[in-house]
Amino acid sequence: MAGPLIVPSIECVANFSEGRDAAIVRAIEDAIASSRGVRVLRAERDTDHNRSVITFAGPPDAVSEGALRGIAVAVERIDLRGHAGVHPRMGAADVVPFVPLEGATLADCVAIAHRTGQEIWKRFEVPVYFYEAAAQSPERRMLEYCRRGGFENPNVAPDLGGPALHPSAGACIVGARKILIAFNINLATDDVGIARAIARKIRASSGGLPFVKALGLPLAARGLAQVSMNLTDFEQTPLHVVFDAVAREAALYGVEIAGSEIIGLLPKKALEDAAAHYLQCENFASGLVLENRLHSLE
Amino acid sequence: MAGPLIVPSIECVANFSEGRDAAIVRAIEDAIASSRGVRVLRAERDTDHNRSVITFAGPPDAVSEGALRGIAVAVERIDLRGHAGVHPRMGAADVVPFVPLEGATLADCVAIAHRTGQEIWKRFEVPVYFYEAAAQSPERRMLEYCRRGGFENPNVAPDLGGPALHPSAGACIVGARKILIAFNINLATDDVGIARAIARKIRASSGGLPFVKALGLPLAARGLAQVSMNLTDFEQTPLHVVFDAVAREAALYGVEIAGSEIIGLLPKKALEDAAAHYLQCENFASGLVLENRLHSLE
Repeated sequence: MAGPLIVPSIECVANFSEGRDAAIVRAIEDAIASSRGVRVLRAERDTDHNRSVITFAGPPDAVSEGALRGIAVAVERIDLRGHAGVHPRMGAADVVPFVPLEGATLADCVAIAHRTGQEIWKRFEVPVYFYEAAAQSPERRMLEYCRRGGFENPNVAPDLGGPALHPSAGACIVGARKILIAFNINLATDDVGIARAIARKIRASSGGLPFVKALGLPLAARGLAQVSMNLTDFEQTPLHVVFDAVAREAALYGVEIAGSEIIGLLPKKALEDAAAHYLQCENFASGLVLENRLHSLE
Repeated sequence: MAGPLIVPSIECVANFSEGRDAAIVRAIEDAIASSRGVRVLRAERDTDHNRSVITFAGPPDAVSEGALRGIAVAVERIDLRGHAGVHPRMGAADVVPFVPLEGATLADCVAIAHRTGQEIWKRFEVPVYFYEAAAQSPERRMLEYCRRGGFENPNVAPDLGGPALHPSAGACIVGARKILIAFNINLATDDVGIARAIARKIRASSGGLPFVKALGLPLAARGLAQVSMNLTDFEQTPLHVVFDAVAREAALYGVEIAGSEIIGLLPKKALEDAAAHYLQCENFASGLVLENRLHSLE
């Protein structure tokens, strides 16, 4: 057995309401990383939004414990009573979704979300909302619904604990969702109207491609317009379907694709599927990829 | 650390001159797999060619030892004096190339080939030729040169041992090479002349794409013609460059691509590069792939 065994991997994309004090964000990151088995994949700090996103992964229990350790630091060091920023928020540890990676399912992540939520209330007396696949009623699937009114004016009772929020740390919105791909396509035009029209045409909310969110934006520095997208289920609506749809719409305006960008990380399956599609591969299967064999479970 | 550590991985694609007696091939495979750390990725047995190919991988020493154990069984159980088959061959264990995978270089494989060759002569008294990157003179880089005359009529003196071949097991041709991608493109025509013309146009030997070998073949069962290719350095001439070149040539004949096939295994980088190319990704890097982060060296 050359390939190391792979246990199910879970990703957590934790959002904290602090983006200005680097020391606090660093302390949260260190606390997360102190959970044995966890690897921090990315840490992004945004001063305008006064918000940070720490992405980490590992085996289920390690990731849950990492999240709890990060939340402990956030509850201790972030006081929302003095917090300002343009991003809506409900808690010091605001949104904590668990995402299935290799060997894990969405159902696994729902279980981890519920278990972690129980611990958040028990350890920190911070009430918890459950959203997306972990939601306990249909309307709560939407993050925006849970967060209505924000920290100052909460509008929806927590699922666990409360009903009053924690005085300084608010509440924590814990969830389970599929992996999200953030994908931008730059158009070879400075006409943002075209990007907006294409976004409207292809996004799910206006009857376009399922599992696609899209906005048209100007990329002023480069003199280009951009279709900025989130793919919330790339297995249902693959990257290459989205790319081809945007290219086709752009062509109707006589506009070419200038290039594309992947924001954050993307799962290898999305690339494998795209390559197999464009190469018209009749027999493609993940097992044809050498490294997948080396790393697969026995 | 969620990701398991990856030690350098070496692949070995060992060719044995037995494709009819399944028990012998199975015994060779078992012997290879008995080397701790080795994983057998594929075993292909061809009765017409009377030849088998066993592909396995693992850390350098484990793969070398796996090859030696497989060769031991081949030397003991295959007698070339009674062997018939359409494929040219020089030995019971005919061709044994080592290929660098993750974390390994071609130079590593040259060293492994030389070390393994020494052991083959020492343990089994089977003379050894070194070919491709492990060759000891330029003309010996070519497998076909080393194998001239075959078992019955060897034409070139071995690099190690000999000069007489082993009476029943012949010689072993050991080498180091980059990973090879076997890639076939099926044309939506039954005119094999078009496939042959395209193959001639794109292959390196007639001034086409470097590191591409190509043949035109009929796919009688499907009524299609096929351009059957080996890519001997996909980093120099990527999969997508080859695909696009064949599609372009085919279009000149008014012929469409019916599909493509990957034979054997291919490295993930070939797919990542193809996806990034077709999606026009401006910022692509292997580190954007989530699983690559999880599995990367610390």
